[in-house]
Amino acid sequence: MISIEVVLSPALLHLSNIRGANVVVIDILRATSTICTAIHEGAESVMAVGSTDSALGFADKGYLTAAERDGVKVQGFDLGNSPFECMNGSVTGRKIALTTTNGTKCIEAVANDGARHVLSGSFLNLEALAAWLTKDGSDVVLLCAGWKDSFNLEDTLFAGALAGLLQKKTDCEIDCDAALMAIDLYNLAKADLVAYLKKSSHYKRLSHLDHEEDMVYCLQHSVFQTIAGLVDGEMKKM
Amino acid sequence: MISIEVVLSPALLHLSNIRGANVVVIDILRATSTICTAIHEGAESVMAVGSTDSALGFADKGYLTAAERDGVKVQGFDLGNSPFECMNGSVTGRKIALTTTNGTKCIEAVANDGARHVLSGSFLNLEALAAWLTKDGSDVVLLCAGWKDSFNLEDTLFAGALAGLLQKKTDCEIDCDAALMAIDLYNLAKADLVAYLKKSSHYKRLSHLDHEEDMVYCLQHSVFQTIAGLVDGEMKKM
Repeated sequence: MISIEVVLSPALLHLSNIRGANVVVIDILRATSTICTAIHEGAESVMAVGSTDSALGFADKGYLTAAERDGVKVQGFDLGNSPFECMNGSVTGRKIALTTTNGTKCIEAVANDGARHVLSGSFLNLEALAAWLTKDGSDVVLLCAGWKDSFNLEDTLFAGALAGLLQKKTDCEIDCDAALMAIDLYNLAKADLVAYLKKSSHYKRLSHLDHEEDMVYCLQHSVFQTIAGLVDGEMKKM
Repeated sequence: MISIEVVLSPALLHLSNIRGANVVVIDILRATSTICTAIHEGAESVMAVGSTDSALGFADKGYLTAAERDGVKVQGFDLGNSPFECMNGSVTGRKIALTTTNGTKCIEAVANDGARHVLSGSFLNLEALAAWLTKDGSDVVLLCAGWKDSFNLEDTLFAGALAGLLQKKTDCEIDCDAALMAIDLYNLAKADLVAYLKKSSHYKRLSHLDHEEDMVYCLQHSVFQTIAGLVDGEMKKM
């Protein structure tokens, strides 16, 4: 029987045992949605790096560099954190070194902790991800990146969507109150995620920064099949 | 304008500024419900203490001693953590030294951090508590005790019930995703809290320990008006 756990903030990760589990890192607006998009658009890999300095250091190694802090693209980088920057062939065949406020820190935090696989979560490939996890059959930990360690709605909604799908598809046990809450919250909001999230703190933050188009894109349900997961320290097509 | 914040776990408390705010500590099953009941039943005070050893030390000072660990009354104490033990005159006029797995640790954690008041949260006095907080008019932080730092459903539901009432009664601003989630979750569950919570981890834990009667009692809505809050380090009638 598969166990499904939801971690609502990186600051609660120490309470979970990720050893041997498939960990899905969730930063819906926007890092993990952008990583999935980049891989789907043919990028060779996306490396999550902690600081802007170390991201810039990868330029010499032929990587595209990408950086976002507090919702804004950092000056001097090839890309920010918008999925649209990864389209129209701009990243095809390229390696990307990406650093963001929340999501990439989470990927780094779990990269070497004995997880079976570390995957990038997004609504864009939700059904494919659920199918992949079901087929693999290991325990699942859904790790919400949140906003600077605080709980957020959009990552929790995705965790609920994925946990709910796994609950239907697999012989699983959900003995985690956070997962039960997330499933109920997703069912409440799923008819119109964009409308539901308009009250959320990060939606307001990104709207002020004119990222509304990004958000509508990131909240699309299952528009491609590509799965991105860590292979030799970089997110690649699985 | 009052700010209302919900903290989903003591492990996330460092992200909030409680200085000058009214902090409501929430351990619905059962510590803060039991504290409210004890004060309502005429106990002079309830002191939250961290360890069983220090709780026992208060016996010499005339206190009733009360201790619970992992849902079970600790041997050698006058009381456990059940609200029913505080009824029928058993605590009237008495001081109680109480230590529990989650709730009393939370009270200790915020007791000396500059909060305006530290109050004990329970469904039993929900309406009275909302009225008290509205009249006081300071910012409000609702601190869920959870289970050993993990998120739980019952404390979140109460936070949502109280945040929702404050939202209706006051000129307030809710820019906290956890509060928005909690309000929605409470609205989803409020028609039958007992039925909703039957899937929760702690309900299952306490059911196995034959505490079902306690839980049904603790989930009653606004059955008394008494408010319990810290005065000189002990929970007393406000």
